[in-house]
Amino acid sequence: MALVSALTEKFGIDIPLLLAPMAGVSGGELAAAVSRAGGLGFIGVGYMEEDWLRGELAKAGNEKVGVGFITWVLAQKPHLLPLALDHAPKAIFLSFGEIEPFAPQVKERGIPLIAQVQTLAQAKRAAKAGADFIVAQGTEAGGHGAKRATFPLVPAIADAVDVPVIAAGGIGDGRGLAAALMLGACGAVCGSAFYAAPEALSHAKAKEQALGASGDDTQRSSVFDIARGIAWPREWTMRTLKNSFSEKWIGNMAGLEKAAAQEGERYAEAAAKGDFDTAAIIIGEAVDLVTQSRPAEEITRKIAGDAEALLKNAAANFLR
Amino acid sequence: MALVSALTEKFGIDIPLLLAPMAGVSGGELAAAVSRAGGLGFIGVGYMEEDWLRGELAKAGNEKVGVGFITWVLAQKPHLLPLALDHAPKAIFLSFGEIEPFAPQVKERGIPLIAQVQTLAQAKRAAKAGADFIVAQGTEAGGHGAKRATFPLVPAIADAVDVPVIAAGGIGDGRGLAAALMLGACGAVCGSAFYAAPEALSHAKAKEQALGASGDDTQRSSVFDIARGIAWPREWTMRTLKNSFSEKWIGNMAGLEKAAAQEGERYAEAAAKGDFDTAAIIIGEAVDLVTQSRPAEEITRKIAGDAEALLKNAAANFLR
Repeated sequence: MALVSALTEKFGIDIPLLLAPMAGVSGGELAAAVSRAGGLGFIGVGYMEEDWLRGELAKAGNEKVGVGFITWVLAQKPHLLPLALDHAPKAIFLSFGEIEPFAPQVKERGIPLIAQVQTLAQAKRAAKAGADFIVAQGTEAGGHGAKRATFPLVPAIADAVDVPVIAAGGIGDGRGLAAALMLGACGAVCGSAFYAAPEALSHAKAKEQALGASGDDTQRSSVFDIARGIAWPREWTMRTLKNSFSEKWIGNMAGLEKAAAQEGERYAEAAAKGDFDTAAIIIGEAVDLVTQSRPAEEITRKIAGDAEALLKNAAANFLR
Repeated sequence: MALVSALTEKFGIDIPLLLAPMAGVSGGELAAAVSRAGGLGFIGVGYMEEDWLRGELAKAGNEKVGVGFITWVLAQKPHLLPLALDHAPKAIFLSFGEIEPFAPQVKERGIPLIAQVQTLAQAKRAAKAGADFIVAQGTEAGGHGAKRATFPLVPAIADAVDVPVIAAGGIGDGRGLAAALMLGACGAVCGSAFYAAPEALSHAKAKEQALGASGDDTQRSSVFDIARGIAWPREWTMRTLKNSFSEKWIGNMAGLEKAAAQEGERYAEAAAKGDFDTAAIIIGEAVDLVTQSRPAEEITRKIAGDAEALLKNAAANFLR
């Protein structure tokens, strides 16, 4: 049995599941594992440079993966896009910023362009700019995102554009994948589900803490971007677990901006030594569903198997 | 064909769909229409008094409906619960506050108790307090709510408690109902989907404006609660369409508190005359899916029919 949708057909994959290109988490090894299991893995370039990207592409080996960029960061390092394209990625995944400057380069190489958006208005714009797939990312997602939620955003975008829609945010298991397909998506992007996998680049202590955490413990803020000195446009905040650092500053962003030099140094030290009472564990509300560390191939196959069973039994279970 | 789940079986209904007990929107006529179509309608008592509740129960006529309360408001008017119970409602639906003081009264009358929660922690508490169903309400819902989103909250609660879970927030059509069932819920609560129905108590001009609005235009805030002088605990904000009034004050809540007397008067006048540039249109992100005003029975049957078709064809459409 295999799952089929516009997504599996386009990429010749068995599972309509994409690994979120998580900065600092999704390297070549994790991306390759998801692809090997039948999904489609993405390397998340995040804030990294050329050497890092070459290295992670090498780690993906013969397994075909895609490459994901933070669009506004890519605008500052545009040379990374041709580097990625030269490796014939399965797709380019652009999030957070204007895709218009990059879409032509991707498309003229015949590589599918996946654009992640956070609002209906952005989806319409991405469709016009030539996106082959639109990822509708809800606020429940880990890492950067905005305010709209996955459940109502997916069908609204599916109704508004002629481009197939992929659901992202809050999807951590087979129930979520099956639900995404019912909502009108052709697949799902999962991030948090893979955060604690052995192949993930996340810190070992962060993985351990994530396993015991609840979505109730997460929040969106710009606290950690200020601490890291990363100039994220404020329309996109970052969902993380709450910790002592965020609770100290969440109500006093102006104070944090003022103290950014010292607090930034303190943050960097904490991140380096794995002190997540100060450093951020960047994960989404689906963390409730992440209760053990399993290899990424196993996670991928389990999500697919559970979704298949739900879809296969949907009529028998819910209709009379 | 009929939909079946723990919800339909408990209430002897054909459609696992509850009308949200929306204050100022869900009166006896709307509740009765949803029940007549095969779902389960609720009268939303909101901030109203005894006479209003008696009147709306009378309007529901012979159709069996439930009664929904804002729990912290009910705590100030506890006499309304026995009044509701004397009418043998199909269920009592409690949202926003401690259910412990009320659960015994409801349960000793043999009436099912539905508790709406916004976090995993609240769900565990509601289960312990004896709720027969737990509504997992995501932030995308219209009206009051909190921060967690429907997609990850539903399966997390389903895993954590032994009580059947109902999904609420962002569900506006058959896709949403089918998705809710896949996620592990036994049904869905819909509010916004019924906002523009002729039976809804919403203002005619508000209905008209809602039809043209997008979820992108909604936000959560306490602005309108301050303007209305309603002492909502600040953990619950209200999702509305943005308008001139909210945009004037959203960044200056302290200023609004100070100007509450004059602004409150201005707000009351606007609400009375249907000026929704100042008064609030209280609706959720699913407003994108509300594009025409249709009778509530038709809406209910359409949601059910679309969900049935999706579930019936799930295997054929997505498995090979």
